[in-house]
Amino acid sequence: VSQLKPGQLAAQQSTGKTSTVDICGVSIGGDSAVTLICGPCSVESREQILSIARLVKDSGARILRGGAFKPRTSPYSFQGLREDGLRFLAEARNETGLPVITEVMDARELPIVERYADCLQIGARNMQNFTLLKEVGKSHLPVLLKRGFSATIDEFILSAEYILSEGNTNVLLCERGIRTFEPSTRYTLDLSAVPILKSKTHLPVIVDPSHGVGVREIVPQMSLAAVAAGADAVMLEVHNSPEDARSDGEQALFPETLAKLVPRLRAVANAIGRDL
Amino acid sequence: VSQLKPGQLAAQQSTGKTSTVDICGVSIGGDSAVTLICGPCSVESREQILSIARLVKDSGARILRGGAFKPRTSPYSFQGLREDGLRFLAEARNETGLPVITEVMDARELPIVERYADCLQIGARNMQNFTLLKEVGKSHLPVLLKRGFSATIDEFILSAEYILSEGNTNVLLCERGIRTFEPSTRYTLDLSAVPILKSKTHLPVIVDPSHGVGVREIVPQMSLAAVAAGADAVMLEVHNSPEDARSDGEQALFPETLAKLVPRLRAVANAIGRDL
Amino acid sequence: VSQLKPGQLAAQQSTGKTSTVDICGVSIGGDSAVTLICGPCSVESREQILSIARLVKDSGARILRGGAFKPRTSPYSFQGLREDGLRFLAEARNETGLPVITEVMDARELPIVERYADCLQIGARNMQNFTLLKEVGKSHLPVLLKRGFSATIDEFILSAEYILSEGNTNVLLCERGIRTFEPSTRYTLDLSAVPILKSKTHLPVIVDPSHGVGVREIVPQMSLAAVAAGADAVMLEVHNSPEDARSDGEQALFPETLAKLVPRLRAVANAIGRDL
Amino acid sequence: VSQLKPGQLAAQQSTGKTSTVDICGVSIGGDSAVTLICGPCSVESREQILSIARLVKDSGARILRGGAFKPRTSPYSFQGLREDGLRFLAEARNETGLPVITEVMDARELPIVERYADCLQIGARNMQNFTLLKEVGKSHLPVLLKRGFSATIDEFILSAEYILSEGNTNVLLCERGIRTFEPSTRYTLDLSAVPILKSKTHLPVIVDPSHGVGVREIVPQMSLAAVAAGADAVMLEVHNSPEDARSDGEQALFPETLAKLVPRLRAVANAIGRDL
Repeated sequence: VSQLKPGQLAAQQSTGKTSTVDICGVSIGGDSAVTLICGPCSVESREQILSIARLVKDSGARILRGGAFKPRTSPYSFQGLREDGLRFLAEARNETGLPVITEVMDARELPIVERYADCLQIGARNMQNFTLLKEVGKSHLPVLLKRGFSATIDEFILSAEYILSEGNTNVLLCERGIRTFEPSTRYTLDLSAVPILKSKTHLPVIVDPSHGVGVREIVPQMSLAAVAAGADAVMLEVHNSPEDARSDGEQALFPETLAKLVPRLRAVANAIGRDL
Repeated sequence: VSQLKPGQLAAQQSTGKTSTVDICGVSIGGDSAVTLICGPCSVESREQILSIARLVKDSGARILRGGAFKPRTSPYSFQGLREDGLRFLAEARNETGLPVITEVMDARELPIVERYADCLQIGARNMQNFTLLKEVGKSHLPVLLKRGFSATIDEFILSAEYILSEGNTNVLLCERGIRTFEPSTRYTLDLSAVPILKSKTHLPVIVDPSHGVGVREIVPQMSLAAVAAGADAVMLEVHNSPEDARSDGEQALFPETLAKLVPRLRAVANAIGRDL
Repeated sequence: VSQLKPGQLAAQQSTGKTSTVDICGVSIGGDSAVTLICGPCSVESREQILSIARLVKDSGARILRGGAFKPRTSPYSFQGLREDGLRFLAEARNETGLPVITEVMDARELPIVERYADCLQIGARNMQNFTLLKEVGKSHLPVLLKRGFSATIDEFILSAEYILSEGNTNVLLCERGIRTFEPSTRYTLDLSAVPILKSKTHLPVIVDPSHGVGVREIVPQMSLAAVAAGADAVMLEVHNSPEDARSDGEQALFPETLAKLVPRLRAVANAIGRDL
Repeated sequence: VSQLKPGQLAAQQSTGKTSTVDICGVSIGGDSAVTLICGPCSVESREQILSIARLVKDSGARILRGGAFKPRTSPYSFQGLREDGLRFLAEARNETGLPVITEVMDARELPIVERYADCLQIGARNMQNFTLLKEVGKSHLPVLLKRGFSATIDEFILSAEYILSEGNTNVLLCERGIRTFEPSTRYTLDLSAVPILKSKTHLPVIVDPSHGVGVREIVPQMSLAAVAAGADAVMLEVHNSPEDARSDGEQALFPETLAKLVPRLRAVANAIGRDL
């Protein structure tokens, strides 16, 4: 391993093609279809996640997201339902057939998250938690790695390399906004990261416009732009009652907004020669 | 004027519609068509601009851009052909029928630029050159105002207000990238500025992906994303021989790339219900 | 001139010494003494500037600053007293003997500013107003050039080079804060710019902690730090009645704070082998 | 705990005084003395750390720093000597009497690090590794928490609150540079964080100019500035042979530079009424 060059496993292969990562039969990457991943920021109750999972399924999305272990800036904020949340997610998957992505925050929680999840998420704040990266590098599950909000693209690729170098080849890269001086949005969504990552690596690239801008009203436009920029998947926060959400409600789409957005995403995907 | 609230003239009107700015018969804004503006960074010779103007015309673009007065970081860099450059631009317009956008850097040069140009450009470095903003506010020509590369969106709108408050209602806002920590691109193109500007103002919004990313290879993807995000116009640098360009050659498209890109831009425009 | 390398005139000379710039008998630079420059953000009235000039003189500061032409983000904010303000400044100089630094915003205003000022200031927003830089490069007065709030140090040096290359050798570089993501302060004061500028150029370096942080309460600590970092001068905003200031009142020191600060600045200057 | 307001335990107490944290008899904080912490980036060998520890002791520094578990951007870079490194550090402490600060990267390594260290360090990349923060919050050892390089000051304080809310009251806050657009320095050292943190919390504040700027040549000036800004401690990287260092050699001071710097730091500390 020590003879490898930095980022060597992540580097673009000679074919120039994006690899495909399979999540329980749903594939991401491979240049043909764009995949839609939806769900709430946090799992808040059995009812909440089941109800949202159904509307996610109806919208045409292929994968369900939701957080059970929540990294929160303040120790006094809601920290997630933990194992209960994982159980409710699994129940939602069983009912809808949608594979489930959820975050793992610590190596010690990995076995329990692996028991319920179909894809592990590493959050932006943990992008350089190198011991955690090595652990998920040994997992049999695919890993969605979020870009740290002040990580350069090269640092992001090297964090993916931590996972790849442990033997896990199923890594998805997710742009979710970087920190800048602009206060109108929570972060600045760096869509140029999409073509840059695709030129430097063979890994599928996902965009999360919900966290990227943090403002519900402009998430649809940024989703369309993400597809046009070449994203292999778009991950959107949706909530049946955003005003009551226990975290990040101001960036979650209303169900009816999602329903109207999906055909527009498909139209843009078609315009650049892809499906959704 | 002193009773106006900040940004009042730029603010979104009750109709919620984007205004239309007319540049010699080509209109920008108004929510129906996306306009393509192309040309070299600098006018370098009569032959160069005539040759590029022809290929711009052939590509389907509607407006020609090119710099005669060039703001350069170093005093020892090429500073533009000045009045000669303006004359060559006017000749290119006469031959192709394309209206011409060119930068004015100083109030004292305004009369001469007005003599040749169809639309004045205020560059990013002059976005808060308030005396210049007031002067172009008195011009009969439309003004394309570029966002300073570290200006907040609210500061950008207030700079437009300087022009509007002098009586010139034909102002176009242009996002061209903001300065961040990311070194892979020259600037970070802030596409979220497009829907934010449209929610806060009635002014047409243009995106300049060439300056925004500074890397030719990803300009096509970012152009497509700009259209998907709702831009009213896209401004692209193109050069018949980018390797020989006297400024910013590394971000100029090859003519054949532009030719292939235009139908894809049109397809994305159509996908969101607009023409190009 | 075209054979000069970028930044050649600003570059550190073989002696490694900082040059000295003389402003009506007060010298800045030269490694021995630290100079204190104080005054209000804006000249607001004859009484105000005379009263502040007296307390500035009493504090031990050697130069008076104050704005007559004010660059303001909004066209509806107070824009300065213009020529009246210059006249009041000149009167304050005549009474106190303190040389006067004031901003020039536009080449057309330069003759009138030159008539009253002892040193010209180019504001941060005009750091890349290249036509203005060239004009002040022809002036007989010294020029205090402020760093643009998102200019790199190398760009800053090249803007100084615009002035130097027109023949004006009396250029002072002023760090005044850069734009970052941190909201606790108005800008982030980049004190590392002081030793970096001194290693790359022979020009005297000034720090403006008032604009740099924008929060009165921490200006004293940042002034002390600026002296410790090696600044040749510190420029401070002070106002006889900060709550009533027509611009930037929240960053102006109270007169009594200035009076207590000066001996502490002198103690730190002495600690690093300089006077004040 | 759930009734506490965000940051309540970290908040400035009614006395307005900085708390004192004791590290094996060396106290940091309390407004009287400034403490010097020195050592190499990484422990590289028994000889290296013993030799550096001796020169650190001779310089007048009171605490030894050195990394055994190293967070590295690339998985193929030197990752530290791990437990061997801890053992060598303990041996250096036993010989010199200097207490030892070293980083812990993961909750599972905490017991072993606690066995050897006198103060735990949480690195910038782990500032929002909330599970790790909770674990060190249960430790009997003091914790030096580094500011994430794109964390706001308020986020930094809330990360300290994670530790405090678990019962560990001995928390030290360390400013180590934030990420900005400026390429001359590795990060931009935000010295305004020192007085801001002191106004918002009662916790001692440390500055690490070595990581903050990443350029050996300007570390002395930034150290002096840190003391002048009010830092309770300064942490400096020093190496007996910086050119051969296995990590961050370009920012480590030469021993002779450290020896010359200490009396200057003491002079500035005295100038503001403190010892060193």
